[in-house]
Amino acid sequence: MKFFEDIQVGDVFEVGRYTFTVDNIKAFAVRFDPQVFHVDEAAAARSHFGGLVASGWHTALAWMRLMIDHRRRMDEAMRARGEPIAGIGPALGFRDLKWLKPVYAGDTIEYKSEVTEMRLSSSRPHAGLMTFRSTGVNQNGEPVISLVSTTFVERREKP
Amino acid sequence: MKFFEDIQVGDVFEVGRYTFTVDNIKAFAVRFDPQVFHVDEAAAARSHFGGLVASGWHTALAWMRLMIDHRRRMDEAMRARGEPIAGIGPALGFRDLKWLKPVYAGDTIEYKSEVTEMRLSSSRPHAGLMTFRSTGVNQNGEPVISLVSTTFVERREKP
Repeated sequence: MKFFEDIQVGDVFEVGRYTFTVDNIKAFAVRFDPQVFHVDEAAAARSHFGGLVASGWHTALAWMRLMIDHRRRMDEAMRARGEPIAGIGPALGFRDLKWLKPVYAGDTIEYKSEVTEMRLSSSRPHAGLMTFRSTGVNQNGEPVISLVSTTFVERREKP
Repeated sequence: MKFFEDIQVGDVFEVGRYTFTVDNIKAFAVRFDPQVFHVDEAAAARSHFGGLVASGWHTALAWMRLMIDHRRRMDEAMRARGEPIAGIGPALGFRDLKWLKPVYAGDTIEYKSEVTEMRLSSSRPHAGLMTFRSTGVNQNGEPVISLVSTTFVERREKP
């Protein structure tokens, strides 16, 4: 991760994309969110969704996994350039998670995160707090999920 | 699920409890949140957590799964009494998800949900909107996770 001082409000992270399939939708939902419209195609077709849809939690967790992979790629690139790597986390939680549209089997969601606030932390003076809004958009350009997270990021200049 | 008209602000759902173990913490994190303090006990012991901790997302998904199971038990009991079952969902999302304390391997979290608001829906007149705060508390009585969700619940009296 970049250091706190090197991140600006408005910076965008291209987190990555994920394709939801009948198989991965069902595999996730059977374990964590076994509602019929996530696990049974025939029942889902008769529901108000009209077809199998991903658990909203699945659309959030796909973002989380892509975000971790994205940070690893950033760290590798920085290491390759001989730059020091800042520590990140833990996350405090998030707010305003919205499931805006259903995600159907076959949909590919592209996730991006934009930094909305950077502030110092009184409880951890060696770190600052980064707040960012993450959005997933489907192949038709429609936002399907949005959430706002806050996490600690290491400062380059320790007080 | 009970119908909208049969749910009151202040009602509490005893959702259930879940024990986090080294194995289920790692299995979840390897797939969705592979940060070192969730997947590597030695590295976790050296981290600021001092030991292996569950992904915050795992503590949320454990609640989700227990909530689905809880609703099924409620529905079965109502069906056994010959009562009609109300439809529930979809959820709109949630707000203010907070990870308040780390959850370590061996911790057992007890989840409860309390209804905080009931209101009619203008977009879906056959349903109302239930808002509830869910909390997970560890075996020492310390809250570890809190979130506020809103979901549709079917009305008994259709307009």
